[in-house]
Amino acid sequence: MAAAQTKSPLAPDRFPNLPAVDGVTFATIAAGVRYAGRTDVMLAKLAAGTTIAGVFTKSTTRAAPVLDCQTKLGGDASAPAAILVNSGNANAFTGKNGQASVNAICEAVSDTCSIPVNRVFTSSTGVIGEPLPHDRIIQSLITLDAGQNAGAVEAAAAAIMTTDTYAKGSHQKVQIDGRSVQIVGIAKGSGMIAPDMATMLVYIFTDAVFEQTSLQALVSETSDRTFNCITVDSDTSTSDTVLMAATGASGINAAGSSDFAAALHTLMLDLAQQVVRDGEGATKLVEICVSGAVDDKVARTHALAIANSPLVKTAIAGEDPNWGRIVMAIGKSGAPADRDLISISFGDVNVATKGWVNPNYVEAEAAVLMKKQEIDIIVDLGMGTGTATVWTCDLTHGYIEINADYRS
Amino acid sequence: MAAAQTKSPLAPDRFPNLPAVDGVTFATIAAGVRYAGRTDVMLAKLAAGTTIAGVFTKSTTRAAPVLDCQTKLGGDASAPAAILVNSGNANAFTGKNGQASVNAICEAVSDTCSIPVNRVFTSSTGVIGEPLPHDRIIQSLITLDAGQNAGAVEAAAAAIMTTDTYAKGSHQKVQIDGRSVQIVGIAKGSGMIAPDMATMLVYIFTDAVFEQTSLQALVSETSDRTFNCITVDSDTSTSDTVLMAATGASGINAAGSSDFAAALHTLMLDLAQQVVRDGEGATKLVEICVSGAVDDKVARTHALAIANSPLVKTAIAGEDPNWGRIVMAIGKSGAPADRDLISISFGDVNVATKGWVNPNYVEAEAAVLMKKQEIDIIVDLGMGTGTATVWTCDLTHGYIEINADYRS
Repeated sequence: MAAAQTKSPLAPDRFPNLPAVDGVTFATIAAGVRYAGRTDVMLAKLAAGTTIAGVFTKSTTRAAPVLDCQTKLGGDASAPAAILVNSGNANAFTGKNGQASVNAICEAVSDTCSIPVNRVFTSSTGVIGEPLPHDRIIQSLITLDAGQNAGAVEAAAAAIMTTDTYAKGSHQKVQIDGRSVQIVGIAKGSGMIAPDMATMLVYIFTDAVFEQTSLQALVSETSDRTFNCITVDSDTSTSDTVLMAATGASGINAAGSSDFAAALHTLMLDLAQQVVRDGEGATKLVEICVSGAVDDKVARTHALAIANSPLVKTAIAGEDPNWGRIVMAIGKSGAPADRDLISISFGDVNVATKGWVNPNYVEAEAAVLMKKQEIDIIVDLGMGTGTATVWTCDLTHGYIEINADYRS
Repeated sequence: MAAAQTKSPLAPDRFPNLPAVDGVTFATIAAGVRYAGRTDVMLAKLAAGTTIAGVFTKSTTRAAPVLDCQTKLGGDASAPAAILVNSGNANAFTGKNGQASVNAICEAVSDTCSIPVNRVFTSSTGVIGEPLPHDRIIQSLITLDAGQNAGAVEAAAAAIMTTDTYAKGSHQKVQIDGRSVQIVGIAKGSGMIAPDMATMLVYIFTDAVFEQTSLQALVSETSDRTFNCITVDSDTSTSDTVLMAATGASGINAAGSSDFAAALHTLMLDLAQQVVRDGEGATKLVEICVSGAVDDKVARTHALAIANSPLVKTAIAGEDPNWGRIVMAIGKSGAPADRDLISISFGDVNVATKGWVNPNYVEAEAAVLMKKQEIDIIVDLGMGTGTATVWTCDLTHGYIEINADYRS
């Protein structure tokens, strides 16, 4: 964030056209939390009756806003609610002052917007270990409250960015009993990304009706198959947050709808992949599919070992179909594998079968595949029926440039 | 290894003067295993009666030579023995051909040198997944057998290098009951380095007398505190091998000698640190001391999470005292920690105490420390008496350069 980064070569062509979601409005402001000349605070207001579910980092050093959000899920949903997010400062590892800043912001939002304090959710993202200048945020609240706009979702996505090179949004429309509900999501994140989960903030809004408990179950389960299956650098943030708000303004109950669940999965996977596509320094999006493991958990362990291996990631950066490093990563994962049963393909080019190079393998064919922006690594362990798919990016000079000079 | 790398800025001034060890001779040759114009095979011959202990990678995809060595430890030591090492090709993930190559080499050494085949130990290091051209090695054996020389240990250290930028050796002389025994070790390794253990090959020779079982216990225990406490990139090789040979030629029994154990620890730590100093692209040697953990294992988990974090390693490369990333790494490790009890220092500059920045902390003081070649990160978790120390290096453009173009 020190210097503006060039837009990722893997970025979507443009930010999608996102419809308004009944019961949700946004405003953003340049509050000067850390950097000048850009918006850095986003306030979303949510109609009375909105249920809110969340999934958070499992870091033992998680930040005060995360701990605060966790205590507020599942309470009485009859009143209006708000989500306030700042970028530039994570309010993490700030001792008792961290919770004090959260309290001060929540109380100020409560006062300004006439919302109960236990219905105010906050997130902070940016530098760790420095006190959050919460006064600058509080001084902005009257403007943020007055400027609420149902159509300002792209501005909201931009205000929460840190080292992101593009704003991230996604949309699904779902038909339920002949009527339609909307799902709209925004996300930020590009480094310190790993299950669980990332310096990743995600906010999803729907006008469908959900009880909080069924919304929570759906968000948790779908996050496990999407946001918790991506890794940029194996480093897990202290601030990772997924919040989903169901305003109920459509009057259409979506609990138990398989179409809604599928659409939410599609939207979450789209946002998760957008985060990987913006991985710091990324030039390749890599999908790693592991099958044939003794169970799904073992498959996931191997897939993440491959995805997090610096040697695999640098080989991909170098467009080198270096399958030996994939074998290495499987071997180091600690999970069950049999060297002489492993098969590996890059896309549709099988390079190794049952422990050794395929006699028909032509490296030039794999080398052509490696020049693409999207790389598929397919591993069959040959031992069982367990499967997993994870997504990552390559490790390049760009990652070093961004991270050797982020804070100073 | 594709192109000769510039010598690491962290390299020792010169290769040490290593004495001959009674009962050990060496020869090297340029056999053309993969690259031209350099030695790439080393044959060490060991006197009759030499006991041999070993510690190996725990990778589930470990290479044929490793599996072969593991079967040969602890056998009858009355005959002479040999260690043959090639660089350029790891003979790993080569299917059944891998063991066939090992067998062919061991049988040829046995024939040429009149050594029982079960007393011939081999290691291979280099590219994974390509067949080992063992004929080139076998054709060199007569020359290697004829050229044995007790003083050729530096040449041996050079022949086993891959991406290493300098040969690695170490020496200790130990007094036992007024007489002296020698310990001499050589090592290679600079990438794919992580516990357990590394693309790391280590060969240690002593003229002391040891039963195999007591030598094995000593080597295993000391490796856990040295070679298994270093990490360059978290990637574990399929070929890691530590072999120690005790020729007994001095007639001095060193089993149970605390002086010998201490000297061996010093020598192993020296070689381990030399490997980290040659970490691919390394410009800083980093020692990470964690104390105050609930037990030693937890301390080690946190220390390795810090050591393997790309964000910590890039911050060090950028000479940025970014202690927030250390907090992040502790948080992601999964091991017990309490955010508000953690204290962190860089060398003698305390930056954070009990969960927040030290009020007396002056970043300029830490910034000066970060410019040194050797960085100490000291973490007190404030929870118990568990401690651990690990060593790593920074993550730089050099690592990307070396690894995005190693194989092609």
